[in-house]
Amino acid sequence: MSVHVSQSAHKIQLWRRLGSVQYRNSRLLQRQHLSSFSSNADRNDDLVTLEASPDTGVATLRMHRSPANSLSMEMMQSISGAIRKAESDRKIQSLILTSSLPSGIFSAGLELTELYQPDLARLPKFWESFQQLYLDLYGSRLSTIASIGGPAPAAGCMLALSCDYRIMTDNPKCTIGLNESQLGIVAPPWLAQQYIDVIGNRNAELALLLGTLFTPQQALTVGLVDELVCSGDSSIDEMAQRKAAEFIRIPPKARVAAKELTRGTQIAKLSGNREEDTEFFCSFVTTDTVQKTLGSYLEMLAKRKK
Amino acid sequence: MSVHVSQSAHKIQLWRRLGSVQYRNSRLLQRQHLSSFSSNADRNDDLVTLEASPDTGVATLRMHRSPANSLSMEMMQSISGAIRKAESDRKIQSLILTSSLPSGIFSAGLELTELYQPDLARLPKFWESFQQLYLDLYGSRLSTIASIGGPAPAAGCMLALSCDYRIMTDNPKCTIGLNESQLGIVAPPWLAQQYIDVIGNRNAELALLLGTLFTPQQALTVGLVDELVCSGDSSIDEMAQRKAAEFIRIPPKARVAAKELTRGTQIAKLSGNREEDTEFFCSFVTTDTVQKTLGSYLEMLAKRKK
Amino acid sequence: MSVHVSQSAHKIQLWRRLGSVQYRNSRLLQRQHLSSFSSNADRNDDLVTLEASPDTGVATLRMHRSPANSLSMEMMQSISGAIRKAESDRKIQSLILTSSLPSGIFSAGLELTELYQPDLARLPKFWESFQQLYLDLYGSRLSTIASIGGPAPAAGCMLALSCDYRIMTDNPKCTIGLNESQLGIVAPPWLAQQYIDVIGNRNAELALLLGTLFTPQQALTVGLVDELVCSGDSSIDEMAQRKAAEFIRIPPKARVAAKELTRGTQIAKLSGNREEDTEFFCSFVTTDTVQKTLGSYLEMLAKRKK
Repeated sequence: MSVHVSQSAHKIQLWRRLGSVQYRNSRLLQRQHLSSFSSNADRNDDLVTLEASPDTGVATLRMHRSPANSLSMEMMQSISGAIRKAESDRKIQSLILTSSLPSGIFSAGLELTELYQPDLARLPKFWESFQQLYLDLYGSRLSTIASIGGPAPAAGCMLALSCDYRIMTDNPKCTIGLNESQLGIVAPPWLAQQYIDVIGNRNAELALLLGTLFTPQQALTVGLVDELVCSGDSSIDEMAQRKAAEFIRIPPKARVAAKELTRGTQIAKLSGNREEDTEFFCSFVTTDTVQKTLGSYLEMLAKRKK
Repeated sequence: MSVHVSQSAHKIQLWRRLGSVQYRNSRLLQRQHLSSFSSNADRNDDLVTLEASPDTGVATLRMHRSPANSLSMEMMQSISGAIRKAESDRKIQSLILTSSLPSGIFSAGLELTELYQPDLARLPKFWESFQQLYLDLYGSRLSTIASIGGPAPAAGCMLALSCDYRIMTDNPKCTIGLNESQLGIVAPPWLAQQYIDVIGNRNAELALLLGTLFTPQQALTVGLVDELVCSGDSSIDEMAQRKAAEFIRIPPKARVAAKELTRGTQIAKLSGNREEDTEFFCSFVTTDTVQKTLGSYLEMLAKRKK
Repeated sequence: MSVHVSQSAHKIQLWRRLGSVQYRNSRLLQRQHLSSFSSNADRNDDLVTLEASPDTGVATLRMHRSPANSLSMEMMQSISGAIRKAESDRKIQSLILTSSLPSGIFSAGLELTELYQPDLARLPKFWESFQQLYLDLYGSRLSTIASIGGPAPAAGCMLALSCDYRIMTDNPKCTIGLNESQLGIVAPPWLAQQYIDVIGNRNAELALLLGTLFTPQQALTVGLVDELVCSGDSSIDEMAQRKAAEFIRIPPKARVAAKELTRGTQIAKLSGNREEDTEFFCSFVTTDTVQKTLGSYLEMLAKRKK
């Protein structure tokens, strides 16, 4: 029974599969968790734009769902679709993920109207799209760089955590972190594990309990981002391009195998546990207490707007 | 068979249970590992004092077993009982753990006379009380704050590690750490795991090998404590109260679910393994070599007193 | 089936075994993974030298395979043999691992001519010797100190990671790290896990992807080494001796039990998975892509020499 397979066994399975397919198409990590839902990148040009440069090997994925790149089901499917489109081009080895909203917001996280008084038939599909986005981005064969020009709370932080490298603008008004507890909800275990893996268990524990949002400087200190761009420095896009070029110098087969070392276990774990994860999320988010807290939070946001 | 269930399976079970009970009474973490031994907090007022403020939602647990809050079986049962008493009050959301000994000592750790030339019938019960204290404190539904005004070696450090936040007085004479190896004994795996989770694998490995006791400044550097109180600053108690208030602002259901993310697996692991853990401890501590080392250590302590 | 036993179950088995054998001969960690291939330390005096001082309890293992202590199968068997020889002397509690090459190079890592256009009958034996060297050094009952006077890339870094303490000369020309990806190959999971355990998951992930080689100062910052020796300071050998003396003050039984806490699980994992690990390595390294990249790398090295 799959849930009884230990981490160690998962690793071995992946490890062997890596050996046997011998990276035949360099898209293994991607391939192993492709679900059957069809990509719809093409019909979502109003949500994301993908720009591929076969010359440099770098593709740029720009998110622009107004007003804050919050992740509706369609937005998540659109990002997933664009990632796969980039991967399908054999000349592309690196992906820069960024926002092209005038406000600079990276992503405000999950679209809360999907969670508050939700359509119960749509809710599990919404969650599956979130899982799929994580699997697509975190497990991509491409080297992935988050170019974070503005706030990245909650699932916006997940987008950043799923990349291989994070560059952020050094503006103290822009914060990043898994602040779910402040909204009365909780990150799923696979997202919490990303947090633990990137900033360490103790930092993650405290930040998850308190729903901490880190300023860029604080994020750099705990390791949540890798580099800051000060105003006056070269632009964040140039830095992302330079970093992409650095990754591209590594033989792709070795780079993908190295990624598998730190990410394979987590990908296998969620892949074998999607239904239960969805079930828990749906039952948790629809409880009276959570709905009430979400309602108050949305009300507070609406007031702040005025 | 339970020992063959992987971490991942444990997590799933907890995750589902979290969903199904829907935090009916917000005491899930506590509930899932309540053992059958009866609380005896009331008859131990000479060992600990519990002071609850329903207005602020904060309870304070003061330890005062002379001379050093060392953990005899009765002391551990007394602390466990007080934690549960605090949890039984639905208005209480936060617990401050501190010492009210005039010397300021937080806790000297396990009562060594329980380990040296031990009563063989009592020894396993003593160890089970230690496990239970860990399960009660580490898995409490309350947000827990250790206010450490003095030394906290060995199991005294465990008390601190089991809290959600640690504030320590900045007095270089007060040290904290798992120094078991210096006494010729070894921390149990669940306690070592706490150490690893809080200060990182490498720091923990070296400190466990050498039995390192950290000064407050060193403890802050490795992340063993979160904050230091300098003399002249606001008192350690005020800081603990302020931190408690910060935790209380988080919706309790979300805060408990976040705690489950980082602690659920470890709690499930020991809960399913208590007998074997006790068996190993008893066989290890009663070996001739360990008894001899403990004897020399106690002799050295006695000489130092004079 | 052993690969389905979870980490947690492994731990329990080790824990119980520790209890039952009661460190009868203080060589448990070593004993549990002794393979059947016979030691050949004696006939390899041209590769390593072992110098034991029963008075201090410290043995020194000097590697001197010209020109760079690269790890051929014979070299690895020779180091393994010397570790066991040191362990067989009950008066020895500590081992210093160092290089006595005039160039100061610690170890250049695996002998690449073993990997490029390899003898297919020898290749699996070569890899098993590498696994065995890890098991012997990482799981030694001795406290182990790496005295790193020069570069330690790839498997040279593994030698350092397997010790309990790492002292390095502060010369920016000497670098250390798992740079496998730069050569088009990948570290095995057990070596990647050592890296994660020592420098943290995030540092390890990025360094594995990019094949980073750290300068001594960078290595100190991420925790890859514990101490640097500046020129003018006491010699690196004196520092290693002092550190060895510090470890020796800890009761051996407790020190070995503490080592088991952080290393037992990993040792058990590889011990139960050696064949599959070898199988993957052999199939990965013999692919056309990897052979081609290795060929270019060796050519580049040859040109640089001239």
